[in-house]
Amino acid sequence: MKVGILGLGLIGASISLKLKEVNDDISVYGFDKNDQSVDFSLSKQIIDKKLDLGALLDFDYLFLAIPVESIKSELSSILDKISEKTLVIDFGSTKYQICNSVSNHIKRGNFLAAHPIAGTEFSGPAAAKKDLFDNKVMILCETENTNPSLLSSAIKMFKSLGMNIKTMDAIDHDRHIAYVSHLSHISSFMLGKTVMDKEDDEQTIYDMAGSGFESTVRLAKSSPEMWSSIFIENKKNIIESLDEYILNINNFKKLIESSNQENLNTEMKKINGIKEILKGIN
Amino acid sequence: MKVGILGLGLIGASISLKLKEVNDDISVYGFDKNDQSVDFSLSKQIIDKKLDLGALLDFDYLFLAIPVESIKSELSSILDKISEKTLVIDFGSTKYQICNSVSNHIKRGNFLAAHPIAGTEFSGPAAAKKDLFDNKVMILCETENTNPSLLSSAIKMFKSLGMNIKTMDAIDHDRHIAYVSHLSHISSFMLGKTVMDKEDDEQTIYDMAGSGFESTVRLAKSSPEMWSSIFIENKKNIIESLDEYILNINNFKKLIESSNQENLNTEMKKINGIKEILKGIN
Repeated sequence: MKVGILGLGLIGASISLKLKEVNDDISVYGFDKNDQSVDFSLSKQIIDKKLDLGALLDFDYLFLAIPVESIKSELSSILDKISEKTLVIDFGSTKYQICNSVSNHIKRGNFLAAHPIAGTEFSGPAAAKKDLFDNKVMILCETENTNPSLLSSAIKMFKSLGMNIKTMDAIDHDRHIAYVSHLSHISSFMLGKTVMDKEDDEQTIYDMAGSGFESTVRLAKSSPEMWSSIFIENKKNIIESLDEYILNINNFKKLIESSNQENLNTEMKKINGIKEILKGIN
Repeated sequence: MKVGILGLGLIGASISLKLKEVNDDISVYGFDKNDQSVDFSLSKQIIDKKLDLGALLDFDYLFLAIPVESIKSELSSILDKISEKTLVIDFGSTKYQICNSVSNHIKRGNFLAAHPIAGTEFSGPAAAKKDLFDNKVMILCETENTNPSLLSSAIKMFKSLGMNIKTMDAIDHDRHIAYVSHLSHISSFMLGKTVMDKEDDEQTIYDMAGSGFESTVRLAKSSPEMWSSIFIENKKNIIESLDEYILNINNFKKLIESSNQENLNTEMKKINGIKEILKGIN
């Protein structure tokens, strides 16, 4: 198997490690705009060779593990350069605009829109973990537009990495993910900002922050470049989710202002239901 | 040592376990308005005997590990009933109003206002862990109003449990904790609500929620009764923190709306600084 990976960040480097673990006969070619990430990945045998962007023929899979705006701008010209047997798979966190950018491309069948629900707050190839995808969900969108035999190979390959496959409409994907993932990141970044703006003295944060603050603010460590790109691509859904979030906070604030303990309790008891839902994760 | 604990929740039961571990000669008397919590604590030897609220003489320490509103309403009458050698210590998450409620009490010296920066999202004696306080901070407020010899014994006792002591003005404590702890809880509860209101289908949350959502929404599993009481007691500071949080979200939303990637990156890079601050925790 010959695999090319564009983007040697957490996702690109982790999938390479796992592919190399489960396949004996595999060569992974990797590229990153950051030369240090390429050198690091070569030295740690995360990849076997540097990928030449001018020579994209004869790959089985080409993974795009780069920011969503770069996927959108590069995907069409990448499809121009590949051979019939290659399947290009993107791992962007939004799907509609990416699918749309190649909907009329003559090689649309050679593209699969995918979103691995996996990640940590860390970035770069040094953060790679070969078990990152174990038992995680891989969401595939608009699979009806992918060549069926290439699709079926890809599904088999993802399952061999230990992933569970779900399919979803691209528009639905982007709307749901705005709530379930993108909103979490913004709420966490803004929590970090609000606390840091207020607390000049880092020692006070040290002393008073328990594990509650730590877990809630964890996502505020995430990569700005990756997330600014996602926020802009999924702007419409994210703004809708932020408006609802702000509305909910304002309503909750009113309950606090009026010392309405009964309604605060009722509200929080309902939200405690998230316990049962979260049991399904992991 | 003879210890009484009012409130056999996570905090009360955990401190009992730890006190019994580090002291050979100790009897712990526990009370909870929930009889099942008393029975459970007796059966698991978390406490030795049920505490009789009419017999509060001769204790070395009486810990109040009950909701802040109950501390405020009970503290004065508890001080009425104790002997000179007893130190009453409350573990409420707000401190100013509690201190204020007994500022003129003749036995004010027998009271110490404390806040252990420790906890999990779980509640009740079954969630107790004897290592809950290991290397955690115990914040003490208005220590100048506690009898010096009782204070010095209490500090020695908390250190024997593995805790680090910090002192702080009660008003400062409440203002800082609104940002560093209370705001985290509200942002997490509201994230849970926004996602649950939107997603009728729990399967979608299962499939799309990665570890990011899980950690950000973790605090939404917390006890409604405990937190509604805290939110109302610390209303003024919490509303201030919520207003700043909402303002920050609205400004961030404008950057997304105008696709201002440069400013989004600059903003998030600054917030990434929380990484260094969080290294100090644990």
